[in-house]
Amino acid sequence: MNNQSKANQTVKTQKRYTVTILAYPGMTMLDAIGPNDILGNSEFIDLTWASTEKDPISNDMKSLALSDLTYFKDISSTDVLLVPGGAGDHYVMQRTDVLAWIKQMNEQTILTTSVCTGALILAKTGILRDIKSCSHWACLDELKKLGAKPERKRFVHDGKYVSSSGVSAGIDMSLYLLKKLVSKEHARDIRFAIEYFPNQFHLFNSYTLPKFLMAKLAKRFHAIFKHARSKVINEKNT
Amino acid sequence: MNNQSKANQTVKTQKRYTVTILAYPGMTMLDAIGPNDILGNSEFIDLTWASTEKDPISNDMKSLALSDLTYFKDISSTDVLLVPGGAGDHYVMQRTDVLAWIKQMNEQTILTTSVCTGALILAKTGILRDIKSCSHWACLDELKKLGAKPERKRFVHDGKYVSSSGVSAGIDMSLYLLKKLVSKEHARDIRFAIEYFPNQFHLFNSYTLPKFLMAKLAKRFHAIFKHARSKVINEKNT
Repeated sequence: MNNQSKANQTVKTQKRYTVTILAYPGMTMLDAIGPNDILGNSEFIDLTWASTEKDPISNDMKSLALSDLTYFKDISSTDVLLVPGGAGDHYVMQRTDVLAWIKQMNEQTILTTSVCTGALILAKTGILRDIKSCSHWACLDELKKLGAKPERKRFVHDGKYVSSSGVSAGIDMSLYLLKKLVSKEHARDIRFAIEYFPNQFHLFNSYTLPKFLMAKLAKRFHAIFKHARSKVINEKNT
Repeated sequence: MNNQSKANQTVKTQKRYTVTILAYPGMTMLDAIGPNDILGNSEFIDLTWASTEKDPISNDMKSLALSDLTYFKDISSTDVLLVPGGAGDHYVMQRTDVLAWIKQMNEQTILTTSVCTGALILAKTGILRDIKSCSHWACLDELKKLGAKPERKRFVHDGKYVSSSGVSAGIDMSLYLLKKLVSKEHARDIRFAIEYFPNQFHLFNSYTLPKFLMAKLAKRFHAIFKHARSKVINEKNT
């Protein structure tokens, strides 16, 4: 076997995945934006937001509105479904059309996931029955009443279900999803991109790595930044 | 002195603050949504988004658009200004009207802050000259060229300027801002609300606190949740 064919053998073609984030009135933005900026940052993932409404939706604190999202009924399948939480959770739990859509999507997903009280919405459809799950710490009793088996963890993976605890935990869960779907190295790259080193306990972090190593890493990022920055400027100037 | 007047003496009337988050095309959502969901969650803060555009703006990865924001020229002062980063940073650095607005706002702020490459925008206006500052790790050289004094830290506070490192560091910076503006206890409450315990090194965290203590904490949250949930349902049903 020559070197070329050896190399070809070791180059694994990375599968691409579709990720769909559910959006609804009264959602907590950080639940969804953590995953958006981690999973959507990956070149192996095509990310879409599915809105329960045709009009723009406001977040829980009404500080902003999201527009230009895809209406949920226009999405018929996804590899990964992600349901965020927020004050609008009980509203969605009353929407039988959305619950039916979640069940239908779940039949085709490879991973069905939630952040914070998004787990209550999943549980309401019945798909988390007897599944080890997480939610916001203040809602674990409610999750139990809906038939799931709550755990006090940052996030829990049981079968094809991955659920995280409150709001910010969606960040940790998303890095985990990326590791599972793509690779540990890829998840680490994205961790550097969003500089997620909230403490100094990571052996390799952006604050303590020697400068020459950081410079090497930076080189790759600069190429990406340059392209992305020009794109925004060009779009605004045309 | 009777008990009532003693109580009145110790009840410190909490000052309210206005926070303005700058929004622009090509911004990184997590830079701004971390602060939005921490500062905007506080009853002592009135949070507004100031957009550089009159039309809805797309984020860096174009997965969503923000609408219903206030046009930046319609905001003339704020206690705290927060400038996020993202691929659109260089676009904003070319917008002399936005740079002039930032300088004008800065004359009145009590804190001028940035997340990620938002520091480059602040530095471009000249206000970070010789100020100890942070930015995304891959952009510290660029920050230096713009006259600031970059440090490799999660966030840096120098004078009235607070700047954080990349993307997710805006979360840590915002909890710090809340501690400075309101109190340590209030910042801790909001930390519990967004369950920001990315590791187990917090002495008091939502995963390890005894259940009876969590139940006590939960009671207060349930009252807030109940109100917020009803509000979304009522709004959608009318």
